[in-house]
Amino acid sequence: MSDEDQPAGHGYIGHKEDYLKRLRRIEGQARGLQRMVEEEQYCIDILTQVSAMTKALRAVSLGLLEEHLGHCVVGAAAVGGAEAEAKVKEASEAIARLVRS
Amino acid sequence: MSDEDQPAGHGYIGHKEDYLKRLRRIEGQARGLQRMVEEEQYCIDILTQVSAMTKALRAVSLGLLEEHLGHCVVGAAAVGGAEAEAKVKEASEAIARLVRS
Amino acid sequence: MSDEDQPAGHGYIGHKEDYLKRLRRIEGQARGLQRMVEEEQYCIDILTQVSAMTKALRAVSLGLLEEHLGHCVVGAAAVGGAEAEAKVKEASEAIARLVRS
Amino acid sequence: MSDEDQPAGHGYIGHKEDYLKRLRRIEGQARGLQRMVEEEQYCIDILTQVSAMTKALRAVSLGLLEEHLGHCVVGAAAVGGAEAEAKVKEASEAIARLVRS
Repeated sequence: MSDEDQPAGHGYIGHKEDYLKRLRRIEGQARGLQRMVEEEQYCIDILTQVSAMTKALRAVSLGLLEEHLGHCVVGAAAVGGAEAEAKVKEASEAIARLVRS
Repeated sequence: MSDEDQPAGHGYIGHKEDYLKRLRRIEGQARGLQRMVEEEQYCIDILTQVSAMTKALRAVSLGLLEEHLGHCVVGAAAVGGAEAEAKVKEASEAIARLVRS
Repeated sequence: MSDEDQPAGHGYIGHKEDYLKRLRRIEGQARGLQRMVEEEQYCIDILTQVSAMTKALRAVSLGLLEEHLGHCVVGAAAVGGAEAEAKVKEASEAIARLVRS
Repeated sequence: MSDEDQPAGHGYIGHKEDYLKRLRRIEGQARGLQRMVEEEQYCIDILTQVSAMTKALRAVSLGLLEEHLGHCVVGAAAVGGAEAEAKVKEASEAIARLVRS
């Protein structure tokens, strides 16, 4: 089924491979951190890597969120009413969790 | 004009007094911090107040964002097309600035 | 008494005027935000200002924290023992509050 | 060599196994996220998992930072002078990167 046919589908699906690639890189960063701890590397260097990994995760979540707004929320808004309201509430709660994490 | 007549109006307007009240309290926190520095209070106590003030600001921005999504973005989505896309992009950029601030 | 005489004094005191100036500017930003809400300006423009104000607050707390580490924590470390441990614990808790705010 | 003998050693080393365990769990979360994207699960559920993973990473960095302050910074402070100053500056920069990531 084409994207045209499902305006309210999961927004990231068109970029599935891109997200998988980014998440594999993040998994690699988690393994790299284990190696650094294993080799007893300097704390500050480990912290720098943790910050880089957190940034990469942030970018993934901001990307997913934008696609979610553009697909699911806009799709629900076209339907309107309670459905739109519920999607806005759900998205806002996800944004709040993101900001606080 | 009533809110009914302008579904795409600024979302916070219905809660204008509430936002003004919260911002006045935040302004008071900024003045309280000046007093603490003036009186040379302990750094950690000042930092605790800065964290409380940052939290209050975060709550304001999450509230504004939710109302923006529920009014402006949902309103634009009802119109659809380029208008909806532009609003989603604009909201996503605001979320990214928020997350990184 | 000079700074030389009190190595464990509050770190920011030497820059008191600078911190007061920054906090007055932040207070002004809080007033500017009230004006924007009063005038019913566009939500995204308000959010941009909230992000700028949050950034300014962050910079104040990172500055205070660095001076706190350089004065109070280093001062306590020179004394050593339980005093040093307590200061490290206190600073770490402040950092955690800061990161989560 | 015992911990007693190297007061300025990497702080996390005593808890190496604990950090490795937490990082392995984080690596597992990164793999879990790939599975969720692979199975085209709902964006909001993926975002919830990303937030949980970010929180786990934050906890690792706050833990490492506390141990770094308690060992390396306090150790350098005992030596004093330029060495202490350099360590405080380095730690403050790591905190700033952490706050902004």
